[in-house]
Amino acid sequence: MPLPGAFAAALRGAFPDDFISTDPGDLATYGRDWTRVIEPSPAAVAFPRSTDEVSRLLRLCADHRVAVVPSGGRTGLAAGAVAANGELVVSLDRMRRMDPVDLVGATVRVQAGAVTEAVHRHAAEHGLTWPVDFASKGSSQVGGNIATNAGGVKVIRYGLTRQWVLGLQVVLAGGEVLELGGALEKNNTGFDLRQLFIGSEGTLGIITEATLKLTRLPGKLDVFLFAVPDLAGVLALFREARQGPFVIMAYEFFTDRCLARVERHRGLASPLGEASPFYVLLEVERGEGAEAGALEAWIGSLFERGLVADGTLAQHGKQAAELWALREGISESLTATGLPHKNDIALPIAALEGFCAELLRFFEAEYPGWEIALFGHIGDGNLHVNVMKPDDVDRAEFLRRTKAADHAIFRLVQQHAGSISAEHGIGLLKRDYLGYSRSPAEIAVMRAIKRALDPLGIMNPGKVLDP
Amino acid sequence: MPLPGAFAAALRGAFPDDFISTDPGDLATYGRDWTRVIEPSPAAVAFPRSTDEVSRLLRLCADHRVAVVPSGGRTGLAAGAVAANGELVVSLDRMRRMDPVDLVGATVRVQAGAVTEAVHRHAAEHGLTWPVDFASKGSSQVGGNIATNAGGVKVIRYGLTRQWVLGLQVVLAGGEVLELGGALEKNNTGFDLRQLFIGSEGTLGIITEATLKLTRLPGKLDVFLFAVPDLAGVLALFREARQGPFVIMAYEFFTDRCLARVERHRGLASPLGEASPFYVLLEVERGEGAEAGALEAWIGSLFERGLVADGTLAQHGKQAAELWALREGISESLTATGLPHKNDIALPIAALEGFCAELLRFFEAEYPGWEIALFGHIGDGNLHVNVMKPDDVDRAEFLRRTKAADHAIFRLVQQHAGSISAEHGIGLLKRDYLGYSRSPAEIAVMRAIKRALDPLGIMNPGKVLDP
Repeated sequence: MPLPGAFAAALRGAFPDDFISTDPGDLATYGRDWTRVIEPSPAAVAFPRSTDEVSRLLRLCADHRVAVVPSGGRTGLAAGAVAANGELVVSLDRMRRMDPVDLVGATVRVQAGAVTEAVHRHAAEHGLTWPVDFASKGSSQVGGNIATNAGGVKVIRYGLTRQWVLGLQVVLAGGEVLELGGALEKNNTGFDLRQLFIGSEGTLGIITEATLKLTRLPGKLDVFLFAVPDLAGVLALFREARQGPFVIMAYEFFTDRCLARVERHRGLASPLGEASPFYVLLEVERGEGAEAGALEAWIGSLFERGLVADGTLAQHGKQAAELWALREGISESLTATGLPHKNDIALPIAALEGFCAELLRFFEAEYPGWEIALFGHIGDGNLHVNVMKPDDVDRAEFLRRTKAADHAIFRLVQQHAGSISAEHGIGLLKRDYLGYSRSPAEIAVMRAIKRALDPLGIMNPGKVLDP
Repeated sequence: MPLPGAFAAALRGAFPDDFISTDPGDLATYGRDWTRVIEPSPAAVAFPRSTDEVSRLLRLCADHRVAVVPSGGRTGLAAGAVAANGELVVSLDRMRRMDPVDLVGATVRVQAGAVTEAVHRHAAEHGLTWPVDFASKGSSQVGGNIATNAGGVKVIRYGLTRQWVLGLQVVLAGGEVLELGGALEKNNTGFDLRQLFIGSEGTLGIITEATLKLTRLPGKLDVFLFAVPDLAGVLALFREARQGPFVIMAYEFFTDRCLARVERHRGLASPLGEASPFYVLLEVERGEGAEAGALEAWIGSLFERGLVADGTLAQHGKQAAELWALREGISESLTATGLPHKNDIALPIAALEGFCAELLRFFEAEYPGWEIALFGHIGDGNLHVNVMKPDDVDRAEFLRRTKAADHAIFRLVQQHAGSISAEHGIGLLKRDYLGYSRSPAEIAVMRAIKRALDPLGIMNPGKVLDP
């Protein structure tokens, strides 16, 4: 599906020769994200170098009614950056400028295409960090992080991306440029429009620059692995950890099913003696100048009170990395050793135990013998539910049945006041399930806001809301 | 201005007898907030007991086109809760329910009328706190805290109110009830509508309940007072403090002018030997089990490097309270010893020095001899600029001239990319100045959102935006 002729002609007059690509390789690369469910089919890819170019481009798109898909590092897992209907992809790849770090204010202004890890390195030179951190940070871009309100393993310590954005520059569907906030911690001057764009998945405008809030790099980190008998134990230990002599950096859990897959694929082994149905990985930062022995005393008291069946504290960086590998290897190991159907859901922490019991009962009743691999950021109430394809069920049948199962899972999530997307977003993949997390009244308000900001419906159409 | 007769009749049929008051004392009390500039003139005050009553009330208000002013603890400083035009005040005073604290999730659900300090006490029983904290906490209510995105002295540690709200229940202008979020840390399912209502000053709906995020009460706190020669020194010390062996709880500054007023009014004295043009109050939390002596070593290094002219570390709670009294007594002392014209502005921290120099130059040139008392949450870039009435200028003339000065101050704020309202909000008092902080394009988007959510314009009309 090519671009309209008059629009293509207008582009040629207004931008440099290398501004637009229709190269099939570029269309295939830039037309999709890390999801592989929907076939990409963009008309072209634009590579602006400045906010001014984005603004002039979007003005032309509005004039010619050309739909646009904003495109960052394309590491999303909800097909929010997939161009499947002849849209113009607007890549931020050439907008990677990072200004010098403001050391007094502890902020930095960057263009939206700056890669997350590059921002980390830039800030780390000054002992600072932008604490938005996850596995895809080597490819993901700041604009995409903000547009999806990205999460990750450090949310329990630092919160979501939303918390680390002071200012936003956004280009609206008609080309208008908004400068929202800036290097300000406090700015109570009417509706905080920044917040609307954060997490809106490119449906309200294109983020072109951001002023990021930085924080001090953490001090010495310690990593524990614990074995606990059941989910109630995972939660009891969490409550205990919140009162421990440290700040929690990560509180992750996984089941024996996950560990078995990691052991099979990566050849790793748990350092704990006995097998256990549940494992907890706890990373903590000790206070500056904390007394030696405080952690050991704390871990000792857990054993004494029977809160853990087994546990270990990494004695050096290599051991800490080995413990983390057990947790971080799960996603890859599930895919390498089978076909997982993934869900990323959140529950109130207090509802987790009841929810998981019902979830497992549901699978036992409806899908007897199927393997469910549970893991996630349980300190945030965030569960990754992985249903593994049984060997005796073919792929098409598996996809059909997991789709039906999704409705049942999401009904259960709704009954427990949870969210059908904790951190991945809605995109195209979860759009038809939105009603499990948002009421008709909420969706009506979302539609009204979408109409107010994008009356022609050209900004990432079909993502989050029906077009 | 009485309520329309048909509306009053409909209310009588639908609600208990004590639901509405037109008692002159109630009208005077509930018609205004802590500002005293605009004369209150409400038609009546409603005292709902439940979300259902608020919903049925707002439906009737929409049917009869009755304008509504939501009313919490009325401690605001921008006239956001003033009813000056025959509106119906909706007081949340009877909606003070606090649910039991959820100890696993560290959350609590409360009705909007719960008093901030009551929430603190409720959470403190479990070693937890809702870290929204300021002088008016004994009267202010959670709903008002959220509707104004309240700040305070602990923002540098904990952020604004926005960061501590997981779920919101809101009644829209037509009576529709939205349940936004809940006890969830993560919920990336489309536009985060909570964020729109936080800080919207009652112009989009009435907040009726909230699920609050709690955190652990801080450990042992230490309080320093430092004397520094100039604002550059205040900022250099701030940068240094950010790398100190502790977590910063508060970083406040004030000038010798402020101190003199506190000494005169309260009879307090600075514990530091020599007078100094600038003072810094620093409160820190040491790490759990931190080494004794680390703080003393840090303070020693400040002297060695000439970063402070003088300084003291409170040796016990009474001394700490005495240091805090110097800072917290300022606002009261300025009012008790003169007539201050107040402004609450924010600047990028890196712009503070240049801004203050220009501000003082402006006053020297245009208002020679006038006393300017500067203090504030400088770690957040937040300045309270107090212009004191000179003895030889009468009150009316002073108000006229400070109004003219406000335009000059706000132009300067705009030139330095600051905010004309750091934490107090816009309300009625700063509405006509909004354009110094928000562009015409932003204001147009705000109006579009207001129209989408409140098409009849009955929610707190005239606040933030022109009616």
